[in-house]
Amino acid sequence: MSVITLLTDFGYQDPYVGVMKGIIATIAPQTTVIDLNHNISPQDIWSARFNLLTSFEYFPQGTVHVAVVDPGVGTARRAIAVQFAQGYFVAPDNGLLSDILTSIEQPRIVTLTNKQYWRTSQPSQTFHGRDIFAPVAAYLAKGLPLDYLGSPIDFDSLVHQTLPATIRSENTIQGIVQYIDRFGNSITNVPANQLPQAEWMLSVHHHQIGSQLTYGSVNQGQALSLIGSHGWVEIAINGGNAAQELDLQVGTTVTLNL
Amino acid sequence: MSVITLLTDFGYQDPYVGVMKGIIATIAPQTTVIDLNHNISPQDIWSARFNLLTSFEYFPQGTVHVAVVDPGVGTARRAIAVQFAQGYFVAPDNGLLSDILTSIEQPRIVTLTNKQYWRTSQPSQTFHGRDIFAPVAAYLAKGLPLDYLGSPIDFDSLVHQTLPATIRSENTIQGIVQYIDRFGNSITNVPANQLPQAEWMLSVHHHQIGSQLTYGSVNQGQALSLIGSHGWVEIAINGGNAAQELDLQVGTTVTLNL
Amino acid sequence: MSVITLLTDFGYQDPYVGVMKGIIATIAPQTTVIDLNHNISPQDIWSARFNLLTSFEYFPQGTVHVAVVDPGVGTARRAIAVQFAQGYFVAPDNGLLSDILTSIEQPRIVTLTNKQYWRTSQPSQTFHGRDIFAPVAAYLAKGLPLDYLGSPIDFDSLVHQTLPATIRSENTIQGIVQYIDRFGNSITNVPANQLPQAEWMLSVHHHQIGSQLTYGSVNQGQALSLIGSHGWVEIAINGGNAAQELDLQVGTTVTLNL
Repeated sequence: MSVITLLTDFGYQDPYVGVMKGIIATIAPQTTVIDLNHNISPQDIWSARFNLLTSFEYFPQGTVHVAVVDPGVGTARRAIAVQFAQGYFVAPDNGLLSDILTSIEQPRIVTLTNKQYWRTSQPSQTFHGRDIFAPVAAYLAKGLPLDYLGSPIDFDSLVHQTLPATIRSENTIQGIVQYIDRFGNSITNVPANQLPQAEWMLSVHHHQIGSQLTYGSVNQGQALSLIGSHGWVEIAINGGNAAQELDLQVGTTVTLNL
Repeated sequence: MSVITLLTDFGYQDPYVGVMKGIIATIAPQTTVIDLNHNISPQDIWSARFNLLTSFEYFPQGTVHVAVVDPGVGTARRAIAVQFAQGYFVAPDNGLLSDILTSIEQPRIVTLTNKQYWRTSQPSQTFHGRDIFAPVAAYLAKGLPLDYLGSPIDFDSLVHQTLPATIRSENTIQGIVQYIDRFGNSITNVPANQLPQAEWMLSVHHHQIGSQLTYGSVNQGQALSLIGSHGWVEIAINGGNAAQELDLQVGTTVTLNL
Repeated sequence: MSVITLLTDFGYQDPYVGVMKGIIATIAPQTTVIDLNHNISPQDIWSARFNLLTSFEYFPQGTVHVAVVDPGVGTARRAIAVQFAQGYFVAPDNGLLSDILTSIEQPRIVTLTNKQYWRTSQPSQTFHGRDIFAPVAAYLAKGLPLDYLGSPIDFDSLVHQTLPATIRSENTIQGIVQYIDRFGNSITNVPANQLPQAEWMLSVHHHQIGSQLTYGSVNQGQALSLIGSHGWVEIAINGGNAAQELDLQVGTTVTLNL
């Protein structure tokens, strides 16, 4: 009994995700398939990266995580599979996995060149999710050794796209909004473990926003900043939408005064 | 082989639901997880209540129903688990379960205070779905006795929020719209078993709408009222959107003339 | 271990799909249920047909495909189940299956009249997905012979709705856009196997669009036409939304110059 997670920008209005699950059910019928998110904005590698980075550690040992946000499908961009202590990743080589691979120890990486484990040796130029990524993930879930899928490659040879670093000064940390969720909660790139203390004042645009433990610590409609469930500083409005009401976007600069 | 259902306001554009499934797959890998609905409007306990109330009886014996619409996450609000003859509920104590608990016999209720069955003894202040509700549901699905999760509490001690009553007079029943679905079908709080006869005339705003057996009983574009699949009187337009075209909202008053 | 796929216009904001899965889990707990798509526009039989037609062949042997886009629910329209070499279809008799049944060999068809395999002998007039289609699919997945479900009927007696034919002349093929996906990719009804050559020039409105192998073969923002993963000619914009930017809709005429 193994698990495959799926993360794509295929949305929920077409049969593409269902077709990937059909391929997986054909090759590895005992596998549990879990949707991580399919509403990544078309070709938004950056959001896909955040979704996977904040999720993969909550899955069972041996889980195969498949991420298909793939503007370069059908071009010369490589497709890769990665094995690490807790499981596998399968994705295009476009930077989506960069921050994850930096955070795990001794990843083993191969390019997906062995057509024997594709759905067909002549895959569609536009739907590698169906023809390459889904079948490869299914074979890994069934226990196929990584090496069977293709040739080993070095971490350094991968396309890299990493989270911008925060800027530290004596009394401030400057960062950016890296992700906005359904509730309008705006997650910054300032990690809790960079904070020397449990309280701070966050500045964004012309707003000063104090630190709290949870949403309900302030009145309805009031803004707050807090350590989110993912371990980064987050900006929220209790019962409201911080991104809309405070005009926050991915990339908006924030400053924490310590 | 047991079943867990998930009902949240987490939406389909973030990895939060997927993470809850990862936790469940880790603790109880043989469990089938079924999404009830994740598009509850943020913090809309009232719609969540309708979704669960009209669904729970269609699931297998022993199913664990998890509902996480939780404006008070991280505050002093209690989290509870309930055992009844057909299965379990796991939810915050905020009124979401009130109408259901009124309708079932002899519910046994505990507060979720035993940290041994949480994901961590120091849960996030903002994501109890991941750290408390999902693991507790997984242990119940595996057969853990309810009492292990925390201390028993009385039904009367719970936060209550119940469906408004209809108002009967000799020839009329007055109620409200309690839910609007994707099709714009507007479900009232008038139950079929309050109707002494199979025909009526429904008044809403300035419209008079006759009773029918099904949508296709009237011409395209024509309004009708009928007994919906959930057992309440419903207002619909054949091939159209009744809520939009008749300006209906949750809370709109309707009157049935018998 | 068998598979059931679900295709509906029930959306993702109500518990209707979850309830169907509850019924299936009750009758056939070992079954894997896969969502094909639930965001079909309300009552859009034509899109549902495209979704199923381009997907069903990617599922395991014996899969039961359920399609509930059913404007005529509760009227005299028939409900049917179909057995073919690779599996089953369960749907209303409203033309949704026409193109599929034309493409498969020796379909065996029955009307769903045996109430023994419904959820109840007095089904809701408005939710046959719950009361008829889901339980019937679950029994098929468990191995019930098709004949138990009702009386055999002839293919010719079904409601028919088929894909418009393309118009060939010596140097051109004229067709229409038959489907638009999340990315705005616009899929025509011109099949690859009608093309005598690998290159063409596609005309739509006042645009001339050349043929390519994949999206990344042209610069960002540039239009292209290609053979899509479903085997039809498709119009796309690399990194953009062809339907929006070129004003394409289902039914828009396209001409290929060979």
